[in-house]
Amino acid sequence: MIKSARAVALVALPLLIATLPSQAAGRTMADVLAASKPSDWRPLDPNNTLYMDLPGGRVIIELQPEFAPRHAANLRALARARYFDGLAITRSQENYVVQWGESDAKKPMGDAHKALAPEFTRSASGLQFTALPDRDTYAAQTGFVNGFPAARDAANGSAWMVHCYGMVGAGRDNDVDSGSGAELYVVTGNAPRQLDRNITLVGRVLQGMDILSTMPRGKGVMGFYQKPEERTPITQIRLAADVPEAQRARLEVLRTDTQTFADLVESRRNRQDEWYKVPAGHIDVCNVPLPIR
Amino acid sequence: MIKSARAVALVALPLLIATLPSQAAGRTMADVLAASKPSDWRPLDPNNTLYMDLPGGRVIIELQPEFAPRHAANLRALARARYFDGLAITRSQENYVVQWGESDAKKPMGDAHKALAPEFTRSASGLQFTALPDRDTYAAQTGFVNGFPAARDAANGSAWMVHCYGMVGAGRDNDVDSGSGAELYVVTGNAPRQLDRNITLVGRVLQGMDILSTMPRGKGVMGFYQKPEERTPITQIRLAADVPEAQRARLEVLRTDTQTFADLVESRRNRQDEWYKVPAGHIDVCNVPLPIR
Repeated sequence: MIKSARAVALVALPLLIATLPSQAAGRTMADVLAASKPSDWRPLDPNNTLYMDLPGGRVIIELQPEFAPRHAANLRALARARYFDGLAITRSQENYVVQWGESDAKKPMGDAHKALAPEFTRSASGLQFTALPDRDTYAAQTGFVNGFPAARDAANGSAWMVHCYGMVGAGRDNDVDSGSGAELYVVTGNAPRQLDRNITLVGRVLQGMDILSTMPRGKGVMGFYQKPEERTPITQIRLAADVPEAQRARLEVLRTDTQTFADLVESRRNRQDEWYKVPAGHIDVCNVPLPIR
Repeated sequence: MIKSARAVALVALPLLIATLPSQAAGRTMADVLAASKPSDWRPLDPNNTLYMDLPGGRVIIELQPEFAPRHAANLRALARARYFDGLAITRSQENYVVQWGESDAKKPMGDAHKALAPEFTRSASGLQFTALPDRDTYAAQTGFVNGFPAARDAANGSAWMVHCYGMVGAGRDNDVDSGSGAELYVVTGNAPRQLDRNITLVGRVLQGMDILSTMPRGKGVMGFYQKPEERTPITQIRLAADVPEAQRARLEVLRTDTQTFADLVESRRNRQDEWYKVPAGHIDVCNVPLPIR
């Protein structure tokens, strides 16, 4: 909602402590989450979690190997080879993407491949797909797979992850197999859904989006920085599994195959608070919050 | 598109100079714009143009009085009363909005009203509405009115502007008539379409979005800054009509009721370049570029 600063100061305390669940009907997202059970949440798999350390703090990325197993494996290998350490954020384009790494850094790549077959789509069968009830402009059906926004098309049996804010993908050139994960981008603007099925999405940012989204925009073509000193250096990227257990982030992600998530979606399709006068009655796949705690 | 830094360096020159129109079929947006006629563009009306000067540069906002005449009039009066000068950016919430001004600054408001009747929707009749061919998740139909993204519903004859990236609205509290334009917000994340018909949109940012979108995120409730020193001061907000003609920005906006705009929409629904392998075949109202020159 869009409240005045004065009104927010007045209500801030009640908002923060109103965590008791209300009745089933007319619940807010806060109500739904407060009533969640421990089994509604899943821990992160350290084999699918990357830590990108920047001068401004840590960015945590969750990989989605159900859609991009080859790219996930390559990213694990690149992290183990310390490929990204000392590379930089190279691009920040207004209302579009921030990009980092280098496809041709002339550094040891360990067990990683220099190029990979594309993973733009996969078969929809075998996926636990939680469908949204609402129509989508781009896809026959949208929904979620294990916490990631996705789409599927019964006409050809394919499924793919979709380009929402915070989704991470592997840059490529004109050849479909020219990406490897050595150059990554994150969506920092309105969902660029035209990229769906044209490039491999590998996962999403769970923490630290604020660091990436506020990177000064580059003045070059497509938002690339023109001078080396404009780039933000990457201290390191590590796989969580390669970090001592005590140093890993203990985040949990709300499971999207639960009744709690279905209730959350409904609480956002039809907002139930005093501010909203006309509930939307619908929700876009990229407007559904994917809670982390 | 998402290209490697190396590839972009190689193609940057050809991209920039390839401005000759191609054949009618398979044109890119650059082709379409290069073939535009002078009459496809309209100058800004200085009575509907605000200059917001920040330490980081000038933000230019175009008001849309066809949808929000009372708010436009109030904003002209507030600018004339120098109401905003010395106020600040008060809020920056990740993937949502940046907000500025104050509804209760205890400053002279000139001819402005302290509160206004809402302008959430209006009658669809009398509007030059350029409809998009694609379905929308939230509205019966979407399109454009004089360069602004909008929606309409034949069932009840109403129309409204929609919350796309860069759209500017007037904050309000729980009462629908509690907004005045003294507190404004701009969308800096994925289109929050649930706000449509719940709050008054007044216009859009034409220039300087990069200044607003990269504001450090506030750590308080809803992204409000917690300390005064975190706020960015507003040097001044002026109506272009009140600025000497020689100091006005000479921007032109592509008219959305033209064949050139229809061609642009089609060039974005089905991208025609070597990078895209699967044209989307559709476009969301918030993904259509609204060119300015």
